[in-house]
Amino acid sequence: MNINIILFNNFETLDIFGPIEILGQIKDYQIHYYSEAGGVITNAQNLKVVTEPISSADESGILVIPGGMGTRELINNTSFLNKLKSIAEKSTYCLSVCTGSAVLARCGVLKNKKATSNKQALEWVKSVSDQVNWVKKARWVADGKYYTSSGISAGIDMTLDFISDRFGKDKAIKIANDIEYIWNDDCTNDIFAG
Amino acid sequence: MNINIILFNNFETLDIFGPIEILGQIKDYQIHYYSEAGGVITNAQNLKVVTEPISSADESGILVIPGGMGTRELINNTSFLNKLKSIAEKSTYCLSVCTGSAVLARCGVLKNKKATSNKQALEWVKSVSDQVNWVKKARWVADGKYYTSSGISAGIDMTLDFISDRFGKDKAIKIANDIEYIWNDDCTNDIFAG
Repeated sequence: MNINIILFNNFETLDIFGPIEILGQIKDYQIHYYSEAGGVITNAQNLKVVTEPISSADESGILVIPGGMGTRELINNTSFLNKLKSIAEKSTYCLSVCTGSAVLARCGVLKNKKATSNKQALEWVKSVSDQVNWVKKARWVADGKYYTSSGISAGIDMTLDFISDRFGKDKAIKIANDIEYIWNDDCTNDIFAG
Repeated sequence: MNINIILFNNFETLDIFGPIEILGQIKDYQIHYYSEAGGVITNAQNLKVVTEPISSADESGILVIPGGMGTRELINNTSFLNKLKSIAEKSTYCLSVCTGSAVLARCGVLKNKKATSNKQALEWVKSVSDQVNWVKKARWVADGKYYTSSGISAGIDMTLDFISDRFGKDKAIKIANDIEYIWNDDCTNDIFAG
């Protein structure tokens, strides 16, 4: 199974590397990093990551998209959104962290679905699309193949839940223990909402 | 203030990107990424990060080193250890996550200091140096300018404590809230020990 990580300039660091740490514990998952044109992607923490062009992605597999300030530009990039929509629709599962859900929403793939996002950015996220059932209080939300999480570190909790759904809760607990992470495993317990 | 991140092949993803997320919230901190020879560093999660050669680092500032399976080779790389020792000694502060403390220990800079490491790897870490006062039960340990944490996600808690020590607890709490992270702020509460 391919894990297709979508990066863009000014993505948020922990949004994506929390989930990658967890997904990377599954031996059958092959992680790939894509951006619109490929090449080096840079973010606010001066991190430079080498990516492949999104046109070269095998569109099946698991799509993962982070948030970050870069999403403010991304939601106006029509050619990128068209490609992302195609991948999201063909993917087996689709995970977003923080304002990554705004990008998925703008693609139209979250229409009439429940989803959440960063709580400090929620008003902006809602303004991007009013066709999503935005959940104001949730650490993360799963609706069918779409998993969306709240801000930044919430992606870690969501990805452990995704692993639990795929491989059983014992596997998720083992991974949490191996990475010495105290898993907040109740998606309704969102202390950062409101 | 420079943040000097030390990378090597097969570093552990979340070890370093948890602390970077937090350190990146401080506007005066300029983050740089170094490896022995510079160029692209790859890890087990297929991540490719662009780095500068360690010889070009300004040795003052804050040194941060992750763990990961790559540390098993690193502790036998004498030229790298000599350079790392020089940077560690000249740094204002020095932070390690997981088995990163084994590398610092092999450099000799943790001699007679209290330090900790990944709990599943602690026997190996102790075998690297018996001149360190290894703490078996601690989420992280601060001894002078050296902050060492337990495994992987423990680096997030440690770095928030580092911020608390530098800028006050309110600042650390604000960052934790901004990244929607439930901070485990008691370094003695280590549920993964033993």
